[in-house]
Amino acid sequence: MSDVPGVVITGISGRMGQMLAHTVAGSGKARLVGAVERAGHSWVGQDLGVAMGGAATGVIVTDDPLEAFAKAQAVIDFTAPAATLEFAKLAAQARAVHVIGTTGFEPEQIAALEPASRHSVQIRAGNMSLGVNLLTKLVQTVAQALDADWDIEVVEAHHNRKVDAPSGTALMLGKAAAEGRGIALEGHSESGRQGITGARAEGAIGFSSIRGGDIVGEHDVIFATAGERLVLRHIATDRAIFARGALKAALWGLDQKPGQYDMIDVLGL
Amino acid sequence: MSDVPGVVITGISGRMGQMLAHTVAGSGKARLVGAVERAGHSWVGQDLGVAMGGAATGVIVTDDPLEAFAKAQAVIDFTAPAATLEFAKLAAQARAVHVIGTTGFEPEQIAALEPASRHSVQIRAGNMSLGVNLLTKLVQTVAQALDADWDIEVVEAHHNRKVDAPSGTALMLGKAAAEGRGIALEGHSESGRQGITGARAEGAIGFSSIRGGDIVGEHDVIFATAGERLVLRHIATDRAIFARGALKAALWGLDQKPGQYDMIDVLGL
Amino acid sequence: MSDVPGVVITGISGRMGQMLAHTVAGSGKARLVGAVERAGHSWVGQDLGVAMGGAATGVIVTDDPLEAFAKAQAVIDFTAPAATLEFAKLAAQARAVHVIGTTGFEPEQIAALEPASRHSVQIRAGNMSLGVNLLTKLVQTVAQALDADWDIEVVEAHHNRKVDAPSGTALMLGKAAAEGRGIALEGHSESGRQGITGARAEGAIGFSSIRGGDIVGEHDVIFATAGERLVLRHIATDRAIFARGALKAALWGLDQKPGQYDMIDVLGL
Amino acid sequence: MSDVPGVVITGISGRMGQMLAHTVAGSGKARLVGAVERAGHSWVGQDLGVAMGGAATGVIVTDDPLEAFAKAQAVIDFTAPAATLEFAKLAAQARAVHVIGTTGFEPEQIAALEPASRHSVQIRAGNMSLGVNLLTKLVQTVAQALDADWDIEVVEAHHNRKVDAPSGTALMLGKAAAEGRGIALEGHSESGRQGITGARAEGAIGFSSIRGGDIVGEHDVIFATAGERLVLRHIATDRAIFARGALKAALWGLDQKPGQYDMIDVLGL
Repeated sequence: MSDVPGVVITGISGRMGQMLAHTVAGSGKARLVGAVERAGHSWVGQDLGVAMGGAATGVIVTDDPLEAFAKAQAVIDFTAPAATLEFAKLAAQARAVHVIGTTGFEPEQIAALEPASRHSVQIRAGNMSLGVNLLTKLVQTVAQALDADWDIEVVEAHHNRKVDAPSGTALMLGKAAAEGRGIALEGHSESGRQGITGARAEGAIGFSSIRGGDIVGEHDVIFATAGERLVLRHIATDRAIFARGALKAALWGLDQKPGQYDMIDVLGL
Repeated sequence: MSDVPGVVITGISGRMGQMLAHTVAGSGKARLVGAVERAGHSWVGQDLGVAMGGAATGVIVTDDPLEAFAKAQAVIDFTAPAATLEFAKLAAQARAVHVIGTTGFEPEQIAALEPASRHSVQIRAGNMSLGVNLLTKLVQTVAQALDADWDIEVVEAHHNRKVDAPSGTALMLGKAAAEGRGIALEGHSESGRQGITGARAEGAIGFSSIRGGDIVGEHDVIFATAGERLVLRHIATDRAIFARGALKAALWGLDQKPGQYDMIDVLGL
Repeated sequence: MSDVPGVVITGISGRMGQMLAHTVAGSGKARLVGAVERAGHSWVGQDLGVAMGGAATGVIVTDDPLEAFAKAQAVIDFTAPAATLEFAKLAAQARAVHVIGTTGFEPEQIAALEPASRHSVQIRAGNMSLGVNLLTKLVQTVAQALDADWDIEVVEAHHNRKVDAPSGTALMLGKAAAEGRGIALEGHSESGRQGITGARAEGAIGFSSIRGGDIVGEHDVIFATAGERLVLRHIATDRAIFARGALKAALWGLDQKPGQYDMIDVLGL
Repeated sequence: MSDVPGVVITGISGRMGQMLAHTVAGSGKARLVGAVERAGHSWVGQDLGVAMGGAATGVIVTDDPLEAFAKAQAVIDFTAPAATLEFAKLAAQARAVHVIGTTGFEPEQIAALEPASRHSVQIRAGNMSLGVNLLTKLVQTVAQALDADWDIEVVEAHHNRKVDAPSGTALMLGKAAAEGRGIALEGHSESGRQGITGARAEGAIGFSSIRGGDIVGEHDVIFATAGERLVLRHIATDRAIFARGALKAALWGLDQKPGQYDMIDVLGL
């Protein structure tokens, strides 16, 4: 195992951090060489395996990211914008691939990520699932190929505790459809249909949100015209796919030149 | 063919009337013995086949319903409430089965139908599709069997010219679910989700409406709980199913005692 | 918690036994008062929590089922036919509800279960999911209500390691459809379509098996006729549903008279 | 209407020929200027509208294709290989776009089509539906982007009179998946699963065939891996889509240089 790339995970005590630890450890394609938490957290200084409630692993949780990054080929980072900006600089110093699953960046924070990418490979995506990223690309392609007499509808289903609608991924898919069609999503979306709605507006992109049980996440993009329909669907049944996508991105990044990338690049599309 | 039951169709010149004529003629289980239109309509006095743009059939369109009903075992009637009230009386006089696909009745009009049913078999349904009526019954059964930790969602898809949402059938399904659960639909329905909706209300029945292309009508009732889902789906691809359901009802009615029935009775459930 | 019913789990070290332990412990509706393994197993004499790799629970794994059953109101048993026959007698002696998820019984073993049910409530099912059992019942109802011009197809999807096709549940659904229709499944099933098959045999029940990824289990029963389709679908996303169904059965059994029951009884259908 | 392109339809008396006539006439984007049948057919010499059972159109059915082609900008041809080879030469002479929906060519017949394409635009596809052709392209793209740990399954549903399985379109989709993956479909396909099949072969492409009612044609291509699935689905509900696709191809061909094209070219992919 010592000949596979070494990976560091930040925000290790969080749900995503722990899932990443399991995914990397179980992959056979990489090994976990570092685990980072913020200074003062109770896990710092403990063996990661023990902190996670299992057997010792030999990896001690640290609050010194640079020291950890220096020993690794890649860093996987699902934390918060401010922390990620700091990690970007340190990853650049360490020449480590920086996989960024963090969300919620302001535009100026995104701009501030760029300098670090001159010295390191930066791969950033709001959703690290291979399937969803591939779907986004397909939706854009199809929307471009088909005329406006193909109505576009995005339908998503999530668990009953989700508090917003449509889902961020549904909006991302709608945006991809709008781009493919050469229009702005704003001013062309229909959601929350109820009552006397009138006929569907030509060229509109519709959204529907289903909520129930513990559905992890399902997205349909429907293209419907007279006599036929094309439906592109993604079904997520396990949140581990986000960790797996991040690991795949990290491994892919090892062979790339410094710069900014996304999951579409990782997929080679 | 003279030994199969004779059927009269009212409102013969309408889209539904013509579809009924084709269905009865092509069924081999009944024969068309009369076709009724309102006085003054250009088809009255013409051969029905010719009026429909084809070959002569020997059935002359009439504006005298009683004369037509007297020769028939059953009347199939998709017209308007006022006309249907009149036809109910005449069907009772003629002792003919009266299949009523007319919609839009006021409560007092529904009450006014009852007297005629003491002398004739009356079968009335807002949707004559066997599948949809069966689905309604199943939804009620399932909603009754399952606890409230199974979230109920009704999802419907229709063509892009439909002007209201949710569909009448979706509301009928939601009502059946509410009845099964022993609650009122009013006050327990969630539709038009958009923006920050908060978590799904426990016990709510959700509605979503998809619009696109020329979809005839699709209804899903989803029961979702932790780890599993039950989905009951109806797909209509041809409006002729409403005519077929009406004919099936007419044939079933021949063996019944006078009274009021619906499609659930016809299905034997 | 001491006022909720006490449950014993047999075969505690197996995957299903452990899942049952988690389900009962987390339910709030019952408490775990005993855990049984066969004599000689390494867990016997250990605290169950510790044996499962967590904190102590105070429940010591035992190889003496009668002693354990005597302290409980219900026994949940997913083991093997021979063991279950023995447990049935002991549950009868202890007057405890006996929930049997064990499969693979020979007909004479099933007959041998009966005497014990004169003194205790016995609830047995090959699949303890509420949804699947409900689906089975619905399929029978629908097959009975619809004429033979509605073609019946059973489509199932499972993970890529499954070694047989169609799934046992698919066959159970097919059997329910055949019963509803008043025919035997044998001689009326079509599976493995490939090459020049000829037209679909009238009245046949078709089976298709999809294999891929880690799909837990999905079953569609399709009723298709000219112009419409009814689809009854069950989706399982978590094997814990079988443990939850068993617990629900145990709680339901507390209020029943001695006798033999299945999940359809538990569902009140 | 005289400023829209003129189209000739061959094999006019067949089901597809008549559907093409309706589609062209109702499109507003082209006008029907000729209709060809084989010498000796009863329609030759008749007005097309009258022959089709309606009002006269002024287009007289002819058995002289060259004379008809000479007046047209495009020829739409769903006939038989031998006839199509002849029409290809005549279309080249007339410099008319030749849209070929004919199927069943032998390899040498396909080769024999080529010379004519030096002088005319030839667009040929086994399935003229825009959606299916787009789906084929998407399937290839996805199969190329995803690793072999994504299992590929093709599921198709057709009416109960279809005599072969899997459908030709399902095989075309499977071939596209195999190409994307860089393997041959032969030796990597699994269909007709039944009995003890063993685990799914890694890298296999599976096929399932559902038969029921009057389903026009539905195709799912499923890519399934641990925790997620991507499903690309096409639903055809009206055979007129093949006529519409052919007309779209004809109009697109007017602006192209002589050569051989397919529907992927028409879609601009």
